[in-house]
Amino acid sequence: MKKEASMKLNTLNQALEAELADIFDAEQQLVKKLPEVAKSVTSSSVREALEDHLEETRNQVGRLERIFEILGHRPSAETCEAMRGLLEETDEILACPGDKNVKDAVVIGGLQRVEHYEIAAYGTARAFAEQLELQDVVDLLQETLDEEFAADKKLTALAEGGMFRSGVNEDASHAQQPGL
Amino acid sequence: MKKEASMKLNTLNQALEAELADIFDAEQQLVKKLPEVAKSVTSSSVREALEDHLEETRNQVGRLERIFEILGHRPSAETCEAMRGLLEETDEILACPGDKNVKDAVVIGGLQRVEHYEIAAYGTARAFAEQLELQDVVDLLQETLDEEFAADKKLTALAEGGMFRSGVNEDASHAQQPGL
Repeated sequence: MKKEASMKLNTLNQALEAELADIFDAEQQLVKKLPEVAKSVTSSSVREALEDHLEETRNQVGRLERIFEILGHRPSAETCEAMRGLLEETDEILACPGDKNVKDAVVIGGLQRVEHYEIAAYGTARAFAEQLELQDVVDLLQETLDEEFAADKKLTALAEGGMFRSGVNEDASHAQQPGL
Repeated sequence: MKKEASMKLNTLNQALEAELADIFDAEQQLVKKLPEVAKSVTSSSVREALEDHLEETRNQVGRLERIFEILGHRPSAETCEAMRGLLEETDEILACPGDKNVKDAVVIGGLQRVEHYEIAAYGTARAFAEQLELQDVVDLLQETLDEEFAADKKLTALAEGGMFRSGVNEDASHAQQPGL
């Protein structure tokens, strides 16, 4: 999380607020980026999964807004530097020359890094909320955490072919190998 | 991963190389940063865990070097932008004014994001190596993955007090609350 000069970590409540502000910015960055990524992939199954996850991510932003209402404050403007770096890597993958199936496989790997970032961030926020006995907040964060775990599993299934006859990684392994 | 202009993703082997180059840079960034983070935390349990993980991270760099020997190539110079962003956030937490226990709790949250990044990255590399039937590489990546999962669990235990009478988050919840 990018701390503003005014940011302080004197209490666990402030720490929870800092975590939530970080996640809020991260989710908004993701909502802006996912449509471009969905358009760029070749596999229609991956595209559909990304479109579904975009909808889910929008709901997660709404869930964070409900949490801010419960806590009675709006987040200060933060930039989540980690998500910025993660999505910069996705841009570089999309811009990189290569086989379309191989690129799909690498894009999925990039998005799984994003999911894992969110799993860790929401997990920390949930632990702080639990310690602060904010059960409504814990429940809302848990709903999102469950979705993030499911999204990560779905991406693994798409890559490895658990849900389909042939996974993206297998398609990628059939790419021409002129460079070897 | 930061792609060089010369980077290509024509084959799954090239994708595996790109993943490994990204992870190699990420681990090296972490080896440079962990000693500073370990010095900055207040809890001696957290400091010991970070010192242990530094040693483990150095071994993981060595394991990647063995993988490069197996594959017969050295990684091209990459900058892992995501790890750069993750560690920038850690710097900001360390520089932020606040209660020492609250800051420890937030530092742990930051390091769990780092662990999750690595879990996702090694998981993708392992999946590519499996698809390419590079069993020696799969085995080495799995060893590191097991360590990363264990490191993440240890950080959760330190935060939540599973291993000790009182966790870092509980200590943090006793911080003075002048801002509330």
